[in-house]
Amino acid sequence: MMRYQWGRNMNPADEIKFDDKGLVPAIIQDSQNNEVLMLGYMNRDTFERTLESGRVHFWSRSREKIWVKGETSGHTQEVRDIYFDCDTDTVLIKVEQKVAACHTGYRSCFYRQVRGDELVICSEKVFDEKEVY
Amino acid sequence: MMRYQWGRNMNPADEIKFDDKGLVPAIIQDSQNNEVLMLGYMNRDTFERTLESGRVHFWSRSREKIWVKGETSGHTQEVRDIYFDCDTDTVLIKVEQKVAACHTGYRSCFYRQVRGDELVICSEKVFDEKEVY
Repeated sequence: MMRYQWGRNMNPADEIKFDDKGLVPAIIQDSQNNEVLMLGYMNRDTFERTLESGRVHFWSRSREKIWVKGETSGHTQEVRDIYFDCDTDTVLIKVEQKVAACHTGYRSCFYRQVRGDELVICSEKVFDEKEVY
Repeated sequence: MMRYQWGRNMNPADEIKFDDKGLVPAIIQDSQNNEVLMLGYMNRDTFERTLESGRVHFWSRSREKIWVKGETSGHTQEVRDIYFDCDTDTVLIKVEQKVAACHTGYRSCFYRQVRGDELVICSEKVFDEKEVY
């Protein structure tokens, strides 16, 4: 297997091309069954916190603050593997997801499917969001 | 299974919250093994072309033009399923990928993994990019 060794004291965050708002999209995928759970955004700081803590941290664009996934619900995401894409402007993180990624009660945020002129719920709720939030 | 019926003449594109540049990120996933292949961006026009043609069309941010995936290489992406996330600001598209998604010769653009202070190639090339491009 080929390896690209970074120099000493190099930080993976140095390799990422953050956008003009200082953000990079992070695709979150279930490490167990490869289901795509959600997409969030990280700035350099929250990427580094994710790497150091092993727990996914996002930058909330709406609240303009650090957002530790699961801070309210306990539905944390433990990092298993981190991948960079060819342009280094997207990261893919495989996680161990506690309970569910979505605040609506579904395991994945992608619980609705386009079928012709219908938007169909294609998943079952795994928790009651009224009891959690 | 619950269904949300759209009204007649409604267009799925009407449901999407495009960003301030008129774009939405589209996660492309292999319909056969659930591998995440790439992330691209669509504007309203390329989302509609994708829906109508059944073939993935992106908006190239660098070239500022429509980009039919596979137009040069023949490595097209045939749409199998389209999902919207809870905020309707990300789409997930499961595709039948011809040969490979990445121009570097790897099946997925996410062919490099962070391991400590190394960036490790964690996949095998499936075509010779010098013979295709």
